[in-house]
Parts: sequence; structure tokens; C-alpha cells
Amino acid sequence: MVRIPPEVDVPLTTRVRQLIDAGDFRRLARISQLGLVSLVYPAAIHTRFEHCLGVYRLGLLYLKQLSHDERFSAAIRPEQAEVFIAAALLHDLGHWPFCHPIEDICLPSVPSHELFANSFILEGEIADVLRHDWDVNPRDVVALLSEKPRDAASRILHSMISGPIDIDKMDYLFRDSLHAGVPYGRHFDQQRLLGSLCLNQSGDGLAITDKGKTAAELMVFARYVMFSEVYWHHGVRSATAMLQRAFYLLHGSLDLDALFRMTEREMIEELLVAGEISPAGELLDGLFGPTRRLYKRLAQYSFIEHRDFYERLARRPYPWLVACAEQFAAAVSTVLGRVVAPHEILFDAPPVKKEVEFNVDIHFPKEGVYRPLGEVSPVIHTLATQQFDDYVKRVRIFAHPRLIEDLRRLPNLPELLDQAITRTE
Amino acid sequence: MVRIPPEVDVPLTTRVRQLIDAGDFRRLARISQLGLVSLVYPAAIHTRFEHCLGVYRLGLLYLKQLSHDERFSAAIRPEQAEVFIAAALLHDLGHWPFCHPIEDICLPSVPSHELFANSFILEGEIADVLRHDWDVNPRDVVALLSEKPRDAASRILHSMISGPIDIDKMDYLFRDSLHAGVPYGRHFDQQRLLGSLCLNQSGDGLAITDKGKTAAELMVFARYVMFSEVYWHHGVRSATAMLQRAFYLLHGSLDLDALFRMTEREMIEELLVAGEISPAGELLDGLFGPTRRLYKRLAQYSFIEHRDFYERLARRPYPWLVACAEQFAAAVSTVLGRVVAPHEILFDAPPVKKEVEFNVDIHFPKEGVYRPLGEVSPVIHTLATQQFDDYVKRVRIFAHPRLIEDLRRLPNLPELLDQAITRTE
Amino acid sequence: MVRIPPEVDVPLTTRVRQLIDAGDFRRLARISQLGLVSLVYPAAIHTRFEHCLGVYRLGLLYLKQLSHDERFSAAIRPEQAEVFIAAALLHDLGHWPFCHPIEDICLPSVPSHELFANSFILEGEIADVLRHDWDVNPRDVVALLSEKPRDAASRILHSMISGPIDIDKMDYLFRDSLHAGVPYGRHFDQQRLLGSLCLNQSGDGLAITDKGKTAAELMVFARYVMFSEVYWHHGVRSATAMLQRAFYLLHGSLDLDALFRMTEREMIEELLVAGEISPAGELLDGLFGPTRRLYKRLAQYSFIEHRDFYERLARRPYPWLVACAEQFAAAVSTVLGRVVAPHEILFDAPPVKKEVEFNVDIHFPKEGVYRPLGEVSPVIHTLATQQFDDYVKRVRIFAHPRLIEDLRRLPNLPELLDQAITRTE
Amino acid sequence: MVRIPPEVDVPLTTRVRQLIDAGDFRRLARISQLGLVSLVYPAAIHTRFEHCLGVYRLGLLYLKQLSHDERFSAAIRPEQAEVFIAAALLHDLGHWPFCHPIEDICLPSVPSHELFANSFILEGEIADVLRHDWDVNPRDVVALLSEKPRDAASRILHSMISGPIDIDKMDYLFRDSLHAGVPYGRHFDQQRLLGSLCLNQSGDGLAITDKGKTAAELMVFARYVMFSEVYWHHGVRSATAMLQRAFYLLHGSLDLDALFRMTEREMIEELLVAGEISPAGELLDGLFGPTRRLYKRLAQYSFIEHRDFYERLARRPYPWLVACAEQFAAAVSTVLGRVVAPHEILFDAPPVKKEVEFNVDIHFPKEGVYRPLGEVSPVIHTLATQQFDDYVKRVRIFAHPRLIEDLRRLPNLPELLDQAITRTE
Repeated sequence: MVRIPPEVDVPLTTRVRQLIDAGDFRRLARISQLGLVSLVYPAAIHTRFEHCLGVYRLGLLYLKQLSHDERFSAAIRPEQAEVFIAAALLHDLGHWPFCHPIEDICLPSVPSHELFANSFILEGEIADVLRHDWDVNPRDVVALLSEKPRDAASRILHSMISGPIDIDKMDYLFRDSLHAGVPYGRHFDQQRLLGSLCLNQSGDGLAITDKGKTAAELMVFARYVMFSEVYWHHGVRSATAMLQRAFYLLHGSLDLDALFRMTEREMIEELLVAGEISPAGELLDGLFGPTRRLYKRLAQYSFIEHRDFYERLARRPYPWLVACAEQFAAAVSTVLGRVVAPHEILFDAPPVKKEVEFNVDIHFPKEGVYRPLGEVSPVIHTLATQQFDDYVKRVRIFAHPRLIEDLRRLPNLPELLDQAITRTE
Repeated sequence: MVRIPPEVDVPLTTRVRQLIDAGDFRRLARISQLGLVSLVYPAAIHTRFEHCLGVYRLGLLYLKQLSHDERFSAAIRPEQAEVFIAAALLHDLGHWPFCHPIEDICLPSVPSHELFANSFILEGEIADVLRHDWDVNPRDVVALLSEKPRDAASRILHSMISGPIDIDKMDYLFRDSLHAGVPYGRHFDQQRLLGSLCLNQSGDGLAITDKGKTAAELMVFARYVMFSEVYWHHGVRSATAMLQRAFYLLHGSLDLDALFRMTEREMIEELLVAGEISPAGELLDGLFGPTRRLYKRLAQYSFIEHRDFYERLARRPYPWLVACAEQFAAAVSTVLGRVVAPHEILFDAPPVKKEVEFNVDIHFPKEGVYRPLGEVSPVIHTLATQQFDDYVKRVRIFAHPRLIEDLRRLPNLPELLDQAITRTE
Repeated sequence: MVRIPPEVDVPLTTRVRQLIDAGDFRRLARISQLGLVSLVYPAAIHTRFEHCLGVYRLGLLYLKQLSHDERFSAAIRPEQAEVFIAAALLHDLGHWPFCHPIEDICLPSVPSHELFANSFILEGEIADVLRHDWDVNPRDVVALLSEKPRDAASRILHSMISGPIDIDKMDYLFRDSLHAGVPYGRHFDQQRLLGSLCLNQSGDGLAITDKGKTAAELMVFARYVMFSEVYWHHGVRSATAMLQRAFYLLHGSLDLDALFRMTEREMIEELLVAGEISPAGELLDGLFGPTRRLYKRLAQYSFIEHRDFYERLARRPYPWLVACAEQFAAAVSTVLGRVVAPHEILFDAPPVKKEVEFNVDIHFPKEGVYRPLGEVSPVIHTLATQQFDDYVKRVRIFAHPRLIEDLRRLPNLPELLDQAITRTE
Repeated sequence: MVRIPPEVDVPLTTRVRQLIDAGDFRRLARISQLGLVSLVYPAAIHTRFEHCLGVYRLGLLYLKQLSHDERFSAAIRPEQAEVFIAAALLHDLGHWPFCHPIEDICLPSVPSHELFANSFILEGEIADVLRHDWDVNPRDVVALLSEKPRDAASRILHSMISGPIDIDKMDYLFRDSLHAGVPYGRHFDQQRLLGSLCLNQSGDGLAITDKGKTAAELMVFARYVMFSEVYWHHGVRSATAMLQRAFYLLHGSLDLDALFRMTEREMIEELLVAGEISPAGELLDGLFGPTRRLYKRLAQYSFIEHRDFYERLARRPYPWLVACAEQFAAAVSTVLGRVVAPHEILFDAPPVKKEVEFNVDIHFPKEGVYRPLGEVSPVIHTLATQQFDDYVKRVRIFAHPRLIEDLRRLPNLPELLDQAITRTE
């Protein structure tokens, strides 16, 4: 047994202990769950190791609950449940430090972290323990985690790990909220959600009974608030934009495969060394150097404020965004009559990929029907189609703190931005 | 100082102590906040006395917070703040037991509880204490609580007691949730909401700064969930429908002014006595007799299920609803070949009055603008215009448990209902 | 399923529903758990009904946990476990309103509430449901609840309902604390205690493994703090002393058997009527009349302050205490030169019966030994032998508020008290 | 404003922001509060940075509360309060990684961390900010933190930072408990303790009024439980013993002044490098290498189990303990007929220095007296004099996991230990 917040015992058997004591898994104890968020919420330094224990525990609870469902019991054999448990524990094994911001740049040389996980699972100590102590084929774990499920059983198990009410989200919303010190992701009635898990109409995915409908709405809403207040907090976005630009500048000279196997501290050291002879160095120094120094917000555009700029900048490819920021930096240099270096202006915008929608089915046993959550809950429909991507995520321009006062006095910012966009297109 | 849940100290001065020890105020210690809800959530028996202490404490916190706002300090004189504090403490003095379900029937002989409160405030011990120990004119308290505010100061104070984010809702959502044993109304980041209170653009009502926007959304959402899971729980609505019909049957023979001054237990005894020679007696016995016996749900219609019936029955005057239920009972008697008494069938439907909308303004200090919450938050717009009244509140038919099995076997329920509605119109 | 605080689902089967909907059980919904405590902690009005649901739920958890213990499974047959569940649910059925303060007077005409419960269990609806739906002999429930256990199985089950870490205490400490709004009884790591339940060395009672040792210490400590801050709060003791004196004055003229079958409100009404022609009336009016008016503390004696008076007054028979207070009232009348009525002075002192000690055994599986908690924990030994009875419980003199100012100015209070004691002996 | 758990806003002014963004302070964001504890409680990786923010916030609350105390206001000038606030924020600046276990070895070359802090405060960025932005002399901060207070004002402020109910303990008990995921240190009614702060009789130190007595008892008890379950958890002690031996082996070859200025990860890297050519390497690898591998418990002695061995081994100088363990390893080698290396056997015992006692005074305003907590609370007296040092802290023998099975089969362990002790003396 091992204890993690919030006062929860995670049951450990010998074979689970063997997995989590393995070097490749221990590595997750040196990768933080939220990366740059801790520059704004200083206590949010919890690790992927802790998160994985939480997900594994929820995996056990999901199985226990669903074992009362006849269709589930008929569909899932015990060996498949074992694979699911291993997958729950190992689902984040391919997560390298600062994985999400780096993936959002969409560089062709960067693998997906799901695929990257395979190398940790298919070889080495983890693979050995799975084969010998779990009697589980590592390929089955990999298949569940990173391949498109091809039969009903796989689709069910896959939806438990990755879907609108999966064990991953259920843990991270709570855990991120707890460690950040905010209430937003902690109060979605996990107990009720667990108690209302069932299969969907076609028997190939998770659904919930109508008793859990408001609990599901609460969880979707909690996720929205966590995006709004934590994951897309403007200070967090400033740090993210700094790291993304630095990584973008450096990535050609980095050994990514080696880099993505490092702990967070090792990766930081590696980046700092690489940045020594690059403008990236200054960006990295503000994030990871002795003194914290984040870029400041110069302007902000959203769906309801300056929708025009918002729509011209959102969901652009990252290289385009960099080019546009550089155009803007050049224009500003002229106006100010001094050199504004390209890396001193950062454009941050919602990435190409939208957040997934929330299409879980609700089962109404009295009426004998299943309906999508979005249909029985206008609020969820609105969240999914409008608020999440268009209201929470904003376009922002960040600038080096040394420039910010001068830039804020510029009378013709909109014109300069308009020009920069036009020139980039 | 006095302690109330959740681990909160309510500061008591001598003059506050004098008000709450007075007989008319102590009476609130014998009136439960949620009335019939305790037949479904058995621990939800907390009193209006406790709630009033909570509201009074929030009143102090609102004043403390707003005292940092220059416009507020300029607008509200200390004497007006005193009146506000007294009003916060006394705002529920006119609440009689089961006030809301009784008011929802809209009988002309029933006063509004706000006006009814006046008699307690303007005369007797409370009035004496206000005059002599508070140096407050009881008429000013009454004016703040029940009259339309006529100047900016009054409008500000009124919006703090009765508005989208008033001290009343902020307390009852939390408190009802705590005592019912559900998480839904407890987690809306009260601290953040308090910290972002300000005045609206025109300086005559409460608003909140953008820092409190998601906290406000959370509170509106919490209120929705409380309606969905507690206040409009189908078991609670069954009990409500039973009490409403009983009261409707008896009200002509009751001394309402005397009745509405009683404690909850006294009113129950009075109703039971009045019900002895009426069909109301059986309804009351199921609610308040030694053995709990609630009517069962026969059918349910909502905006998304059977919208047709929903729209024909929602928001009808109560007497019409009773007539329709009686038509239905008569028709059912014929089909079943046995007498179904009129009071054995109850129609429950959303009342005429809609829940208020959520038009608080959000202040964006950086942009220097104020925008309505519904504009910057599609989710809130959707909640306010659709989900609250159309999705949470349903039309339901309840029947005596002794009949329910037979009724559920009726093959032509929709036809019978259609006929009953047609005949009533 | 039914919900009670703190966000807990109590599972209800049909046969459990039948017990709790029965009139004799519903009666517990009109008897508060803490009686007079709500005059000081106004939210502490939770009912024995709610408490019994909590105890029943803990009973299920105890059984579930202990079912993993081989010796327990061997000792307890399924039918005995059923009797235990019924007993957990029904254990408070004989509790009449204000039971503890009334029992503490030790009047010969007052039955013990455990024996009084028998009449509710052996006859009527409860007995019928037990026999027909539970297949349980009501006599077996009564035996478990109120007879000295005669074999190992009975001793085990009895220790689960009534012992140092029984389901009753585990629920009431938490629940009383929650509703009073204080943290003291809520934080003793219930989860850990449950997880470490086992049998004692001789296999005839509950013990806990060493993993639960500090959790057990925390629970004993929590109980001490609840006594100190809630159950023996000086305001609560004032109210208690008032009720005890009133009951003592009236008891000869009351039909106790009828009285003890009433709900709390009915008993209060009955006492108020009986008090109309007695000095008890004024005492009862201060407790239950429209205006709250508690007696004030004139003096207080404890083991460390004025141990002399403490030892001369503690653990005296109640009639002696009354006689002594009357002597004191008479003496005070003389000194003040005005009539102080006998019932205007109340002496409150620790009752004859001491709180039970805390002799649970701790099992050290590695060493293969069992040791009493008091031996491995000097703190618990100290609590049990000294702090609980000698430090928390005090001797207090209360007086009518109209007298208190004059009495506090008396220069020779110790002498007057000394005389009163001497004369009474 | 910055947010830390548990949902707490820490107010930041510009000058506070300048201190915490300084490199020497940011360093605390890379030193964990509990060091090796995270090998047992994996989520307990919170930083001294977070703790310092919590302590600073409590410092503000203490000042606010005590400002209502006339004697306090008379004794402490505003400039002294400023120094106190700075000291609260900076009190841990000299903490190097794994500070407590290293200090417990009592090596002459190791400075005290309080004195070590001076170098950070008296020079560099911190000193500059204090002088220029705070108008505070860094020497005054150093004096308050590390010198014996010489006047009443200093003694008061010193007791607020370091005393039985200081801001340091109040924060770390809560925070360590929260992050470890245990309830033990979180529930001591901080609000009540704050509300009852006052000065002691002689006006030169903190005391609390009788209203806070049980809250103080709860805090002392909470500290006991945290020692029992977390700080002196046997797994934590195994890791501690491993680190202590490794440091002891290496310390002669380390540049301690440089080492103690590093972040935790840097120190670990430094130790691992130094350990490469030493037996210390294997110990460090088990703690910090890719695979977690803690030594196992071979035997345990306490005040109540084998008091003889306990008393012969507790409170010995560390070098003596190492010598004794080496004697034991040699003896075991002979018995087992194979080499047991000296570093494969670790003796862990309570250090020389006892935990401080709990001598806070309780003020009884009604009686006008002050009494020490230990006098009015036998439980606290027992905790302080017996349970803390003699029952929680144990003597333990740990061995390399590869040896443990063989060692556990040794028939004559007590004899071997007896010999080893005898030979060492």
C-alpha cells in the first residue's frame, strides 16, 4: 500500500511494486505533471509518478464497478482486464518533460508520446516484468494504449483510458487542482460518476446512467474551469510561449530521442547548454535560470474581444505564427527606433488541434434509451462547441519585460499587427 | 461568537445577540430551511435560524470587501450599512414553514413572505431592539427588504441581498448542500467571488471583476445542479405535490395569518387537525404521519422527452392543473373499473414564475469595460435561457402507491392524458 | 440508497427500507442526537435517525473488513451477522429525548434506554418486519443490544456495537462534530481504523493491529476534545443543569413510560404543561420558551483550580447536589437580603458514573503479541486515568441571569459554599 | 497574489515579489521540504519555497491577530514588525538539501543551518532588496533568526518564529500532512489557535488564552502523530540511515560550503560522483539511482519492547553507532561465513538532541492567571516527557535487502548485538 493525496491508499501487489520500482517508471518521479504551470502555481510540482498511481487506482475502481454490469463481464475476459490494469499504470510512460507544449508545435521530428511509450514497454525491465510476473504480453499493452481498437472489448477498455470520462482525466483534474491549490477540478462527485458507469447501447464503449448525468456535466464543467484558470492561465501561456519558441529555435541541433528519455531536470540542463549560443538562451534563462523572469502580456484577443485579430491568428501552424511575430518585431523596431530582437516578441494562439468533444452517452433505464450528453444537456453542448476553444483559449502577444513599458505606449499597435499578419500571409 | 458549519465563527455583538434571542427570531430555529426535502435527504433539517446567521456573516464579509471600493464607500453611509446588516440578519423573518411550495400555488389569500416579514420587524421586540440598541428605524429595514429601491445606494444594498450573487444564495447553496450530504452547492470558490466584488458601471448595483468570472459561472452552475439533484428531485416533487394539493384543499378553512406565524411543527399539527375531515388528511398523513408514504411517479415529461405533453402542462395556473388531474382521475376510474379518488392523482408542473436570470456584470479593468455575464459566457447564457427551466423542471404525474402498479399497466396512458388536458381547456 | 453527510451513500435494501419507514423508527427523525447542545451550537440539531443510518453503514463496513479475518469468519455465522446488522440499525430505538441528562440523575423510576428499547423491538411493526422479512428473531437483537454476552461470538459482536472503537462512537464523534461546526471529532482517520480491525488474542472481542495504533489514539483524543469543547461546554452544562432540575422537580407527576415514547417536541410540550404550576416552569421556559435564557456561570471548580471544592462536590448523588444548592440559595438569600428561590441556583457536577476506559488491544503481528493500548501509549493512559474525568468535567455553580451581577459581587462566596456543603453532609 | 494549497491566497506586494524572485530564494523551489520522505510518501515532494510562502502568510495573520493585543502593540514597533515579516519569509534560506539528517550526525565541519542562512541574507540580492526596498537592515533579520533575543520585543518576535506554537510548525505540520496524503497534521483548528494568541504573563513571549487550550493540545498531538507516522516512519528511517552513513563516509572529501549552496538535484549529483569510488556509492544508488532499493528492517527496539537494547543504543554519538554497526557486521560475517561489508548494516537510533518541550503558557482571563500547558493538561505533559522521544523514536537495525533473509534466520541475534555493543564501549 502506498499513500498519495488526498488521503488515498493505493494498493500495491508485489508485481505492481516491481513495475513502479523499475528505472523507466521511477523516471516519472522526476517529471512533473504540469511542467511550466509551477512558475505561476508554485506548489503544482506533482509528478507523473503520483498521477500514474492515481490512474491505476481508478482503473481498479472502474473494473470493480463495471464487474457488476453483465454486458461488461461478458465482454471482457480476465486476461484483458489484466492488460487494462497494466496499461492504466503505464499509460504515461512515454511522457517526456514539457510534452504537451512541445507536441503542440507539431514538428515532424517529434514523435507522439503515445508511440514513444512503446519503446519503454516493449523492451527492458518493464517488458520483462510484464512477461514474467504479470503473464502479460507487452504488445497487448502497447496495442491498448496506442492502436486504434478493433473489437468491442478493446473499444470498451480504450474508452476507459481515453474518452470523455476516462480514468486519466478523472485523476488529473482532481490532482492538478489539489496541488495548484484551487478548488475547480476537485468537486465533480467522483463517487457518483463511478457508481453510474455502464456500457453504451452498442456495447463497445463507456456510458453512464442518468443517475450520473449531472456528475458528468460537473466533470466537463470542471475541466473547462481548469483550462480557464490553470492550463490556459495567461502567465502559464507566457511561459509556454517562451519554451515553445526556445525549443523551436533549438530543435534542429538536439538529439530528440535522447532528450525525450531524460528526467525534467536533465532536459532543462541539456536545453540550457544548447541555448548558450542561441537567442533561445535568454528565453530559457527566464524560465529556468536563477531568477524567474516571464514575458509580459502586451495584448490579448478573443472571440468576444477583437474577434477579427483572434480569427486571423488562431489555429495557425506554429512556424507561421513565428514568422508573423518576427514581422511584428521588425515593424516595432522601426517605430521604436531601437532593435527588438525576434525572440523578444512571442505570439501565442490556440493550436490547430481542438479539444475533444464530450460525446458520452447517457443511459435512461426507465425509458430504455441512450442519448448523447450533448443532446440532453444544452450546457454541455455549448461548452463543447463554443466556450472551450473560443472563449478560454485566447490569442496573446507577449514581450520581454524590458520592452513592455515602451510597447504599451505604442499608439498604433492594431495597425502594426494588421501589417504583420498581412505580410506573413 | 457562535459556531455553525462548516467550521465557521459568526461574530455576535450584544445587539446582535438581542435580536437573535428574541422570540420572533428564535421561531426561525423551529422552521427548517428545506421543508419537505428532508423526506428524501434525511439530514437536510437545518433551520432558517442557522441560515440567517450565515447570511449575516456573509453580509459582514461583503461590506468589508466592498469598503475597499471607493465608489462603494462614497455611495453608502455608515447608517445605511447598519440597516443592511440588520436586513441581512432579518431577511427571512417572514418565512413561514413550507413557504415556497405554498407560494407557488399563487392563491390570492396568501401574502408574499417578504411583506409578511414586515409585521415581525415593525412591531414587538425586534422593532424595539432595532430602535433602541441599533439606532435603526425598522421602516428602513423593511424598505430595503421589500420595497423597490429608489436611489443608487438602495439599489446597491438591495442587489447584495437579492441578486445573482447575493448573500442569500451564497449561503443557502453551500448550506443546503452540506446538510443534504451532496457536493454540488459547496464548491464555487466563495473566497474568489468575495475577492472580486465591485460595483457595476452605473454604480447602482453589484458586479464582479473578471478575476471572479469563472467563480461566478461556477456558482450559477452549482445552483443549476442543486435544482436538478435536490430542490427538483422527483421524490421532493412528489412530497411537494402532496403538500400543495392538501393545502389547496384546506386553505379556505384555515386562519392563514395565524398559521403563517407558527413553527413548522405547530403548522403541521394544525394541518393534520384540519385534514381529519378532508381527503387532504391522507396526503398529510403520508408526509407527516408516523409512517412515511410518498406518492409514486407514474409518468414524466420534459423538454426533450414528450415535449408535447410538457408544453401543454407546464406553467399552467395551479387550479387548472388540479382540474386536469381530476379529469384524469375520473377517466382512469372508468378504465380500471374502480374508484380513483381525485386526490390520489397529482399533476406536478413547473410553476408560472420562471427562475430569475443571471444578469450580473463583469468588469474588465484592463479594457475598462463592463459586460453582462451572459454575454461573455455562452454557458451561462444557455443555462439561463434553456437548461434551468426547460431541462431541470419537469412535468410529472404522481399517484398513490396503492394504485401505482395498476396504473403502470394501463396501455393507453397518453390518450387518457390527452383527453384530460383537452377537457380541461 | 439514501444520502447523508458527509457525502455518504447509505445502501438501502427493501427490508432495511421497511425498518426505517416504520413509525417507531421514524420517531427517531424527531429526536435530536444532542438535545440541549443546540442551545449553544445552533446547527447541532441532527437526529438519531441520521445517526442510526450512519451506524448501520459502519456496521456493514466493519463486517466487510472483518470478513477477511479468518478467526472472525470462523466465529460468526451469517445469521449472527444479520442480527448484528439489525442491531446496528436499531441500537438507539429506546433513546428518548434528552436521554443522557435524564439518566445521569439516576432516578429509580427511570429505565435504562437500552432496556426501554426492547419494547420497541419485541413488539409491533419492527418485530414483524424482523421476523418476516429479515428472518431474524427480535429476541436475538435485544439480547445483542442489552444482555451481557455469554459466548465468544456474542462478545465479538457486542464489542463492535459497544466498546472503545465501536460503530456508535465512530459515527457520533464525526457526526456531532460536523453538525456543531467544529473540527474536533472529524479527523481520526476512520479509513485507517477500519483497515486495521482484527480480533483480540482470546478471539472474543475487537482489537486493532499496530498499523491502526495512532489512528486509535487519535480517536480517543478526538473524543476527549469533543467532551471538552462540546458535550461538557459550560453553556451546554448550564442548559443541562436547568433541564435536570426541572425534570427532578416534575418527575413524580409525569407518566414516564408515555413520556419516553414521545418525540422531542411532544416531550417538551408535555414538560411545559407540567411545569406551569411548578418552579420548573421558569427553568423550562428559559430552555424551550420563545426567548432563550440560560443560567449564568457563577463559579467553577476543577481538579487544578480549587481542587478542594471540586472533590467535595464531584460524583455526589443528584439529590444531595440539589439539597446542597438549596442550602446555598438559602444562605445567599440571607446575605443579599432578598429571596433567592431554590431553583435559581443550580449545582452541576460530574456524575457518579465515570466514562469508560479505553482498553482495546493492539496486535503486533511481527512480534506476535497483543498489548493494551494504555500500555503502549502513555498518552492514552493519561487521558483515561486523569484528563477525561478530572480535567474536562468540572463542578459549576449556575444562577439565574437576574441574580448573577449581585452574586458575583458577593465577597464571601467560598465561605457560603463551604457552609452549604457542610450542612448538607 | 499567489495560490498555494490548501486553496490559500498569499498576498504579494512588489517588495515581497522581489525577494521571492531572487535567485537565492528561488533556490528553495528546488529543495524539497521533506527530502527522503518522498521515497515512502511519493507525493511529499513539496518545496521549501512553498513552505516559506505559507510561513510568511501565517506571519501576517499572527501580526494581525496580535495587533488587537494592547501589550503587543505597545511592545512592538512597526519597524520591528517589518523585520519579523522579512524573517518569516527568509527563515529557511540557509536550509540545504537533507539538512536535518545531516545535522543529526553532529559533525564538527557542518554549520548550523540557521547560521548558514546569514550568508544569504547579509550579502547579495536579498540584502540589497531588504536595504533598498524594505528599508530593513539585513543584520536585524539575521539577529531575529539566529541570535539569542536580548529584549522583550525580540523575545516576543522570536517566540512567534520559533516556539511551541510558532508559524513554522503551524505551516509545516499542515503542509507536510497534505502532501503526504495523511490527515494527521491537518486538523488542529488553526483558526481557533490564531484567535487565542496573546502574550505571556511577563510580556516577553507568545501565550494563548484558555479558549485555545484544546486547540494547542490538538497541535501538539498532531505533531506527535506526524512524527510517529511520517517523520519517523521505519521506511523513512531506513532511507535516513542510508544517507547518513553515505554522508559520513564521504564528508571528508566534500566541499561542504559549496555543497550546502546547491539545489537538491545538484547535491545528489555531487554525492553520486563522490560515491563512485566509495562504499557510499551503493547506499546512494539505492536512494537516488534509477531503481529504488531501501535497506530492510532487521530488528527494532523501543522503550516498551527490549528496553535494554533501546537504552544501550539510543542517544549515542553517531560515530559510536557506526563503530558498533561495524562490529556487528564483522560478527555476522563470521557467523554467516561470508563477507558482510560494513556499510551493509546500519544502526539507526534517536539522536542526542531531544525534541523540544511544549512550554507555552495558557492565560485564564477570568481567573487572571497564567499556567503552563503541561500543568493544565496531563496529556501534554505525558507527550512531552514520555511519548515523543521514548515511544515514537526507536532503535532499528537495517540491512541490505540481499542479506535480509539470511540475517532474519540468525538464531543468536541478541547475543551478537550484545557483543557488538560491549566491544564498542
